[in-house]
Amino acid sequence: MGLTLAQKIIKNHLVSGEMVPGQEISIKIDQTLTQDSTGTMAYLQFEAMGVDRVKTKRSVAYIDHNTLQTGPENADDHLYIQSVAKKHGIYFSKPGNGICHQVQLERFGIPGYTLLGSDSHTPTGGGIGMIAIGAGGLDVAVAMGGGAYYITMPKIVKVELKGKLNDWVASKDIILELLRRLTVKGGVGRIFEYCGEGVSTLTVPERSTITNMGAELGATTSIFPSDDKTLEFLKAQGREEDFVRLEADADAVYDEVVEIDLSALEPLAACPHSPDNIKNVTELKGTKVNQILIGSCTNSSYLDLMKVAKILEGKTVAEHVSLAIAPGSKQVLTMLSQNGALTKLVAAGARILESACGPCIGMGQSPATDAVSLRTFNRNFEGRSGTVSAGIYIVSPELAAASAITGYIEDPRSVDVEAGVEMPKEFVINDNLVVAPAEEGNDVEVVRGPNIKEFPKAKPLADKVEGKVLTIVGDNITTDHIMPSNAKLLPFRSNIPFLSDHCLVPCDKDFPKKAKENGGGFIVGGSNYGQGSSREHAALVPLYLGVKGVLAKSFARIHMANLINNGIMPLVFENEADYDRISEGDVLEVNGALAQVETGKIVVENKTKGESYTMILSVTDRQKDMIKFGGLLNLTKNASK
Amino acid sequence: MGLTLAQKIIKNHLVSGEMVPGQEISIKIDQTLTQDSTGTMAYLQFEAMGVDRVKTKRSVAYIDHNTLQTGPENADDHLYIQSVAKKHGIYFSKPGNGICHQVQLERFGIPGYTLLGSDSHTPTGGGIGMIAIGAGGLDVAVAMGGGAYYITMPKIVKVELKGKLNDWVASKDIILELLRRLTVKGGVGRIFEYCGEGVSTLTVPERSTITNMGAELGATTSIFPSDDKTLEFLKAQGREEDFVRLEADADAVYDEVVEIDLSALEPLAACPHSPDNIKNVTELKGTKVNQILIGSCTNSSYLDLMKVAKILEGKTVAEHVSLAIAPGSKQVLTMLSQNGALTKLVAAGARILESACGPCIGMGQSPATDAVSLRTFNRNFEGRSGTVSAGIYIVSPELAAASAITGYIEDPRSVDVEAGVEMPKEFVINDNLVVAPAEEGNDVEVVRGPNIKEFPKAKPLADKVEGKVLTIVGDNITTDHIMPSNAKLLPFRSNIPFLSDHCLVPCDKDFPKKAKENGGGFIVGGSNYGQGSSREHAALVPLYLGVKGVLAKSFARIHMANLINNGIMPLVFENEADYDRISEGDVLEVNGALAQVETGKIVVENKTKGESYTMILSVTDRQKDMIKFGGLLNLTKNASK
Repeated sequence: MGLTLAQKIIKNHLVSGEMVPGQEISIKIDQTLTQDSTGTMAYLQFEAMGVDRVKTKRSVAYIDHNTLQTGPENADDHLYIQSVAKKHGIYFSKPGNGICHQVQLERFGIPGYTLLGSDSHTPTGGGIGMIAIGAGGLDVAVAMGGGAYYITMPKIVKVELKGKLNDWVASKDIILELLRRLTVKGGVGRIFEYCGEGVSTLTVPERSTITNMGAELGATTSIFPSDDKTLEFLKAQGREEDFVRLEADADAVYDEVVEIDLSALEPLAACPHSPDNIKNVTELKGTKVNQILIGSCTNSSYLDLMKVAKILEGKTVAEHVSLAIAPGSKQVLTMLSQNGALTKLVAAGARILESACGPCIGMGQSPATDAVSLRTFNRNFEGRSGTVSAGIYIVSPELAAASAITGYIEDPRSVDVEAGVEMPKEFVINDNLVVAPAEEGNDVEVVRGPNIKEFPKAKPLADKVEGKVLTIVGDNITTDHIMPSNAKLLPFRSNIPFLSDHCLVPCDKDFPKKAKENGGGFIVGGSNYGQGSSREHAALVPLYLGVKGVLAKSFARIHMANLINNGIMPLVFENEADYDRISEGDVLEVNGALAQVETGKIVVENKTKGESYTMILSVTDRQKDMIKFGGLLNLTKNASK
Repeated sequence: MGLTLAQKIIKNHLVSGEMVPGQEISIKIDQTLTQDSTGTMAYLQFEAMGVDRVKTKRSVAYIDHNTLQTGPENADDHLYIQSVAKKHGIYFSKPGNGICHQVQLERFGIPGYTLLGSDSHTPTGGGIGMIAIGAGGLDVAVAMGGGAYYITMPKIVKVELKGKLNDWVASKDIILELLRRLTVKGGVGRIFEYCGEGVSTLTVPERSTITNMGAELGATTSIFPSDDKTLEFLKAQGREEDFVRLEADADAVYDEVVEIDLSALEPLAACPHSPDNIKNVTELKGTKVNQILIGSCTNSSYLDLMKVAKILEGKTVAEHVSLAIAPGSKQVLTMLSQNGALTKLVAAGARILESACGPCIGMGQSPATDAVSLRTFNRNFEGRSGTVSAGIYIVSPELAAASAITGYIEDPRSVDVEAGVEMPKEFVINDNLVVAPAEEGNDVEVVRGPNIKEFPKAKPLADKVEGKVLTIVGDNITTDHIMPSNAKLLPFRSNIPFLSDHCLVPCDKDFPKKAKENGGGFIVGGSNYGQGSSREHAALVPLYLGVKGVLAKSFARIHMANLINNGIMPLVFENEADYDRISEGDVLEVNGALAQVETGKIVVENKTKGESYTMILSVTDRQKDMIKFGGLLNLTKNASK
């Protein structure tokens, strides 16, 4: 039986487990990337592992998120990352060099390789035939240290692309169509593998727009074959030697199949407030627009912006519209500047922002109250723009540019220029903003500004675990409740002591104080505890505060994994009614914890009330080890001894 | 007796008073400009005056300060300014069009005209022979309404420029030399008028760098003659018709004279933390640098950045340096993009920021803790960069560029390229980001987002004024104490109710609460009350809170004027010992206030203690009227009836 392309690459990298959907496997990681908002913690975790030199084929640390720098914290983080990278064998991409996914694609991605990145849009690399997966910083740290990456083997979905896109319909519309059909939950536990005659009609940047936004389907990753178009791209990047032809076997068997007729697609938009709230442009035409933003890891490539320049040439942005463009990389900016396209964009009235993620991650360009904002980005969650009342529409660069001229949502098919932009034969190559690691790291001093605080380290599980119930919260507590994140707190991602004063504050403003006074203890939660963003800080900060376990009716999957990764027990009530029996301040105790963990059931004694509760610990054997050793870091360190 | 150039222009615009230094005069204003951080309030004040259409020859509203937009407040303000400008006959320069002073110079400034701007660097216009003065928003609002601008007639200082600058010595070094000699207080009450053979060796942008930073001398303004160089500049801007030749009479008499031998100057730097802490580059050479920023209204012209491009061509920014460049205007960015200079800057590793004030006003690019940052800006006050521990050096673009390559402070005379950049024969002209006002304003609806709050209006003085003592503060209270300003509060400059909760909080955290509970009252202060920044909000917010008078041992000059402008009585203890007799909560009363104001002495009865204090009200007749009518706005409205 043949293999799909994803299966082939996974098989090549398989360390443990069987490639059966739903079973745990682990794979070897060839490349890692980090960005600065998750990177500081990833490198602190890497340092805590005590590995001198990264063991990947290439690891790159990018600065692209916190580039506004409204206080010293960001520059402090940049310096820390630059120096820790130099010491430990990691390439460092300076601020101004561009968005991690765009630069990784241009300069470092290799077909058939695995890439693990501490950013959810890492699957961009699937556009050149990589298995590129977004993960938590700790997973990336472990991969840099040579450890395997554990995932549940996903189902493989065949996406059969038929025909060819019509003029002014974009590859963005392909992924929007998939979101329309499958919703933001439709990709969970799945890899989307693109095949069919339509594949060869799409350039690498177009493919990457699709794999990038596979993240919005909830997919593990997405992948395109490595073919002539891939070769053309790598050749133009001066990297022909990195090319290898890759595709699924003819008799590959897929778990699911989706068919898209490219020639039937029309320009689409994801309407407020979800990437799967899709409408056809014909339904939206004429909507008045206040702001248009072009850029982000989804749509900031040379080809994207050349299309925009073509539409805007000789035109002027509508009086009531603010149009801002952030080229995806130094390479893109250089080429636009060199060939005159940038002059056209500026002449039309575009504001040119730094090559960085910027407004896509809520860093600047918040629209006015109640504004309508068209963005070529990937997410339009309520409030993510910094303006809760604004309506954000996710669209293609072509639709954005056409609408900038009139100030109303326009069908890009109505523009009066010829479609099509040529892939350059040679991209301009100048990697002088990428700093190579030191050949010998011992002499490199890591710069730790005041925002770089010690990373909390879990201790091995004691046989007797005791502590007070610090707080009792309700159902559907999100990681935003546990560890709020906003423009004010984001610069402190490497400063767990600072963040700890905000832990669970939206639910219980005294929680940090109580946790500190009692030297830690237990949290009691309702059902779906820890839903939402995958942020590790929602486990790291409780760890810092001494939280030993969370007793809940149920857990969200990723947060539960994060708790285990950090040596905190996620315990589920066998009898949900026990939730109501517990009071804040009750003293809880687990005796013979080490033996009980092995059984998957834990009896928690309530010393205050004189009763006990049976809790379920539903984890794999490896996760049991993590809880016993005190988290993934300790387990990894122990394994490498 | 002949006149100086400044005297000639003032005489042409004189409305009242005599041109005797120290005497109050008023002048007619031809042009106004506002930026967005002061503009919102200026236009709210203009609206309150009830004038339909501006009465100036040209008024322009710029958006250049709050362009990061980390929340909806900035975009709300932009929309308000755009719509109010359109309604009332004001040109609107959209975000992205550039820094107010740079654009005003390029597109609107006219030799011999008067320009009043709500920004302290308005004297940039002196580079083309304007009398260009920075003032509070209320003064600008009054000027837009056709009212005269009142100042104390300054002394005229002749600055005789001899010889010619050597290669790689910049016009920035001329103003730094003046700062070295005269200090930041040396220009108070003075206009600096440049003359001598050296004048003709300086281009308009070079001249404007000098007049711009005359603000750092504390000068009222600075001015250059309008000569062949001015003609060359205006011609290249397609504005030959705006040219008029202007210079001082041969027998002009100056109050003071300063001589500078240009050929003897060397590259200089203003060291932390003051623009007058000047050192020669030879003393600083070899200092390690972490960050270099090029831009701001002082040094972001086409010629400035062409020099930088020339130095950086083919080079790479040092590994440990972050270099960011913000071109001063859309015109500058367009031209650099068109002629290849931008490509060179990007290739060298420069981060390109939006054409705006940006980091110069603390909006982004805060350096790391303890960092050394070279900036081509105008101010290096401690903490202004957003990083209190950073050391900021104010330098020329040439010195900045040379240092970017090595990462250490370098003497620009050591670079291996030929000096000199040519003034273009034609600048690229495209004013499509300037929105003209509506021909008929009645139909234009002013957009007031939730951040645009009603402006507090003073009432005419009652004959009996009474209220409690709300707080008693000590000596040297600054306007930063009275109305704190930082990156978090700056977006709320048009939201007095929001700001009011922060009024005097650094001194007395309950002040806003007490003021609101008591419906206003009195503040008691020590000596030098209201020193520091000239911000009007330090009077507007107390007005909103119902403050009727401030009793102090003495007042800082500008804050006292701002209090009077807003109808709040600034009362000075005749007997300083009375300060100690007053307690918080005492009820004070002024009877027959209207008659007492005329006498310049006010008896304040302390009803609680049963005693009274004689207070001095040291004001001009016009200011007495302002207090009686309830501030400048009411006075102006009354006068125009």
